[in-house]
Amino acid sequence: MKLLRYGPEGQEKPGMLDADGNIRDLSGHVADIADEALSPEGLARLAAIDPTSLPLVEGSPRLGACVGHVRKFVAIGLNYADHAAESGLAVPSEPVVFNKWTSCIVGPNDDVVIPKGSSKTDWEVELGIVIGQRTSNVSKEQALEHVAGYCVVNDVSEREWQAERGGTWDKGKGFDTFGPIGPWVVTRDEIADVQNLKMWLDVDGKRFQTGSTGTMIFDVATLVAYCSQLMTLMPGDVITTGTPPGVGMGQKPQVFLKGGETMTLGIDGLGQQTQKVRRA
Amino acid sequence: MKLLRYGPEGQEKPGMLDADGNIRDLSGHVADIADEALSPEGLARLAAIDPTSLPLVEGSPRLGACVGHVRKFVAIGLNYADHAAESGLAVPSEPVVFNKWTSCIVGPNDDVVIPKGSSKTDWEVELGIVIGQRTSNVSKEQALEHVAGYCVVNDVSEREWQAERGGTWDKGKGFDTFGPIGPWVVTRDEIADVQNLKMWLDVDGKRFQTGSTGTMIFDVATLVAYCSQLMTLMPGDVITTGTPPGVGMGQKPQVFLKGGETMTLGIDGLGQQTQKVRRA
Repeated sequence: MKLLRYGPEGQEKPGMLDADGNIRDLSGHVADIADEALSPEGLARLAAIDPTSLPLVEGSPRLGACVGHVRKFVAIGLNYADHAAESGLAVPSEPVVFNKWTSCIVGPNDDVVIPKGSSKTDWEVELGIVIGQRTSNVSKEQALEHVAGYCVVNDVSEREWQAERGGTWDKGKGFDTFGPIGPWVVTRDEIADVQNLKMWLDVDGKRFQTGSTGTMIFDVATLVAYCSQLMTLMPGDVITTGTPPGVGMGQKPQVFLKGGETMTLGIDGLGQQTQKVRRA
Repeated sequence: MKLLRYGPEGQEKPGMLDADGNIRDLSGHVADIADEALSPEGLARLAAIDPTSLPLVEGSPRLGACVGHVRKFVAIGLNYADHAAESGLAVPSEPVVFNKWTSCIVGPNDDVVIPKGSSKTDWEVELGIVIGQRTSNVSKEQALEHVAGYCVVNDVSEREWQAERGGTWDKGKGFDTFGPIGPWVVTRDEIADVQNLKMWLDVDGKRFQTGSTGTMIFDVATLVAYCSQLMTLMPGDVITTGTPPGVGMGQKPQVFLKGGETMTLGIDGLGQQTQKVRRA
């Protein structure tokens, strides 16, 4: 299934994509694509619905973030060896974990806003893991059973605040609009091999990032298991798993967003996002 | 006002302390001490209630975290010069910002659980700021108007995960039970000078931390203004503001929690917490 949320910001309704790519209204069945709706039982209930029996949503509504009520937006750094190299940083011996403030989450096609005074706002196409069950100290072998599905994430990053302003990366990762997620959660059963998905990101039509989840240093199961040592993961928590090469910081000379650009990004089977960039 | 939440975990009701220190049931007036109940308008509505008109809560119920639905639990590091020195770290030139995963939040007197395999779990008494309004890019001069009140926080910390396992401090700060907050939110009007509050922490009756908010490097107004540059703060967000000297890591030799201890901690005017420590 491809589960999504549509409608004005803060008033999103749950929806499902049908076989023809039309949005069907799920609000008669679940309140939101969030919380227990993402549990194995919740997903089984949704999977039992014939999409053609659901009301067809007319027009092209705005898409909201594909998950509602995200309690934790966990992020993994330097998880592609080539990206670590372009960042001038060593390949980590265990996952680098940081935080994106949940208030940064927006819809997949909402504007990305460059913070006041920023001159180093950058992009990062990433695979997002959507957690489906309460998860604590899970083994790598059982980790995927705790995953509801996957989505595209743009881990938008302000490099000066991330690296040059003292303290942790968190400062540069959680500005408002720095977390587009979606267009939809693709349930785990629809992804044959999550470690073999091509991913890409363009700015104004120029291809900057090209990669594959096949070159992750720590794979999805390892990351879920690792994070579940540090915290109890809950349904609707999102883990974004690091970016392949091609970020603006890694260009020679470096390229950062100035405002006015259009970012487009996508991952095989998970759909794509388009964001206009503007200044605050 | 002193606002609190009482009852079993996950089923807390809102309450208010009366002049005699008894808990009064607020559930006829607000759903939770959370969200808009913490806004200036929400607090004004609660302030208009005669506490003696509210049902008296019998017995000594468990106290929950004093704020419900905390979206962001922002933490400030090295904000007392003496503590920076005992940590062997330079006094920062601007606030150090990190994250405590919101799933770490527990009641003020709930058990603190040492994570599996940990040998370096430590304590940190801190002043918590409870945000009352949507806050983005606020000036230092106007920042306090956005504060609903204050509370005691124990910023429990696992030093190996914080400092020796790669990446950001976030790894060691957000284990389940690492965020006792409460016993109550004391509204801002009851605190004459938030920069002149004594604070202390004992382990098994031995005084380890003694300090005052008077020796903060960055004061409350500065921290709210600073964080509001990085993210939009929302009602019920909590900023914990750093710890004075006396953490276990700073002892010679270092002292860490082993399980079986009792931590007691408090701040002038904000009440106190008592936690038993146990191993996972």
